[in-house]
Amino acid sequence: MARPLQSPLAVSLGDPAGIGPEVIAKCWDSREALGLPQFVAIGDARSVAAVWDGPIELVENPREADAAFDYGLPLIQINAPERDVPGHPSVAGAHTSLDSLELAVGLARSGSASAVVTGPVAKEQLYAIGFSHPGQTEFVAERCGVGRGNVAMMLAGPTLRTVPVTTHVPFAEVTDHLSSALIEARGRTTLRGLQRNFGIADPTLAVSGLNPHSGEGGSLGREEIELIEPAIAALRAEGWRVTGPHPADTMFHAAARARYDAALCMYHDQALIPLKALHFEDGVNVTLGLPIIRTAPDHGTAFDIAGQDNADPRPMASAIRMAAFCAAHREMAE
Amino acid sequence: MARPLQSPLAVSLGDPAGIGPEVIAKCWDSREALGLPQFVAIGDARSVAAVWDGPIELVENPREADAAFDYGLPLIQINAPERDVPGHPSVAGAHTSLDSLELAVGLARSGSASAVVTGPVAKEQLYAIGFSHPGQTEFVAERCGVGRGNVAMMLAGPTLRTVPVTTHVPFAEVTDHLSSALIEARGRTTLRGLQRNFGIADPTLAVSGLNPHSGEGGSLGREEIELIEPAIAALRAEGWRVTGPHPADTMFHAAARARYDAALCMYHDQALIPLKALHFEDGVNVTLGLPIIRTAPDHGTAFDIAGQDNADPRPMASAIRMAAFCAAHREMAE
Repeated sequence: MARPLQSPLAVSLGDPAGIGPEVIAKCWDSREALGLPQFVAIGDARSVAAVWDGPIELVENPREADAAFDYGLPLIQINAPERDVPGHPSVAGAHTSLDSLELAVGLARSGSASAVVTGPVAKEQLYAIGFSHPGQTEFVAERCGVGRGNVAMMLAGPTLRTVPVTTHVPFAEVTDHLSSALIEARGRTTLRGLQRNFGIADPTLAVSGLNPHSGEGGSLGREEIELIEPAIAALRAEGWRVTGPHPADTMFHAAARARYDAALCMYHDQALIPLKALHFEDGVNVTLGLPIIRTAPDHGTAFDIAGQDNADPRPMASAIRMAAFCAAHREMAE
Repeated sequence: MARPLQSPLAVSLGDPAGIGPEVIAKCWDSREALGLPQFVAIGDARSVAAVWDGPIELVENPREADAAFDYGLPLIQINAPERDVPGHPSVAGAHTSLDSLELAVGLARSGSASAVVTGPVAKEQLYAIGFSHPGQTEFVAERCGVGRGNVAMMLAGPTLRTVPVTTHVPFAEVTDHLSSALIEARGRTTLRGLQRNFGIADPTLAVSGLNPHSGEGGSLGREEIELIEPAIAALRAEGWRVTGPHPADTMFHAAARARYDAALCMYHDQALIPLKALHFEDGVNVTLGLPIIRTAPDHGTAFDIAGQDNADPRPMASAIRMAAFCAAHREMAE
């Protein structure tokens, strides 16, 4: 970081039985090699100790973490009724992960933390304790007072940023979910996010088509003409730089990527196939449209490898670095 | 090439007003730097002379091209009623491109040429002269006595080969076109093509899912369960190595690509997004399921830049190299 952040980042451990505790501890271990800023972990210290032999510095708040960071992994303890076993998720662990997330968001909202990075959670366990959001993103949005429809999931790697308009929707239902209004709203959230989180004053958004060859003038599908072009026109009328609809297969090579700051894609795999083909280890999930910064690594709890010391900390390190990068841009803008 | 081919490759110029003549002439110019084997161009010599100052060696047949290749671009003349102007496609040019294609296929079928490489044609002009095939691929299949349904379009780059099950179909109609029988047929054509064209004795095929996260066990769509898994089971029952259905977004990073010889994808962009993101300049279209070898560069006529000496010959060079590679494997097998 060119300039130290005003406060550390808050990193929730995620499910205590997943790989979150391990990769976060490894990030602290390799903080210099990975180029990481100061952060404080939030969760049950026992879930870290179960998979890592390094020093843990229990702290009460992010301010204390500042001083402790050189000596051990600073951690704000979330008391859990029982100790979780790596690889064996439990209902108790779901409570711990939710409490950690809630505290992390609260610290960011109050300004005590510069941003939130969320470790991976197990949705099935969360649903079992009455969690009614599709995922952490929607929970964070609600806690920040933002409607679900106004946030966008960006996948950001070193040479590509993509935002899907629709996300976890069956392929056959994508066209039912697409509308000009939705494309326009996600486009606007993305453009504002590029300004606020990435410091790009006049961002360019490339919008993909839905059909092969972007519909070839309507002969291979009419969504480009009926839904996508009107959304692009509406955003342009507000003064934004927006291009497209582009055939999705010719948007993602290096020369094409150089022409835009983010690609707005119509469905999950259209956004995630190119991102992960190019940036599997360093793609980061960034939630746009929030009053706070929130990032996450683009992987799950990986219960099958938890506790084996085999988990790769690089995606989590990328999420922490990205959170710091975005937080620095917000602080400069404020 | 480790071993010279028995006969030269036949390269049709494609539409005389497109970039085909230019990129093929440039391939001859840079034949050593680009590592190209002997080939003979087929089309109207005037369309080459209009965009290139190098020597053209008019020949009667591929055998003569062998001796001529060192002195000029060997070309079998297709007489055209009028001279075409680069960038201005005409009905006469469509006739020339079709005659060139037909002769190239005939030479390959008779064994006078080792393989066919096809330059880009203009479908609109072809339709205007009564051409009733969706593209060159189907025309070549018919001339070879192979049903359209039994050929498959492979996109092949240095680190990835993909085959779409459905091709130029509107997004909303993809699920209507998908069936277990079609997935199975395309999978079998692909596996046989990997053996015959690429010399892979026991190939591994990775089959993609259709829905986000491959449907998450049915909660995000049931095509994986109802269509794709039965097709995989049927191919496995024949003894083929087939894996999947895999979530499409985690199939295309380097570590994943190392686990298979080709990816069978459910729709156009699922196959072409990763291929072009990774191999925009050197992806080649290879038609599988034919008695002959046929490849093509993965670009169009580019009328907008024809005649300006700006066209990049590398995709055509990749298509010529790939044709020679596949022809050598076929000759060794025979």
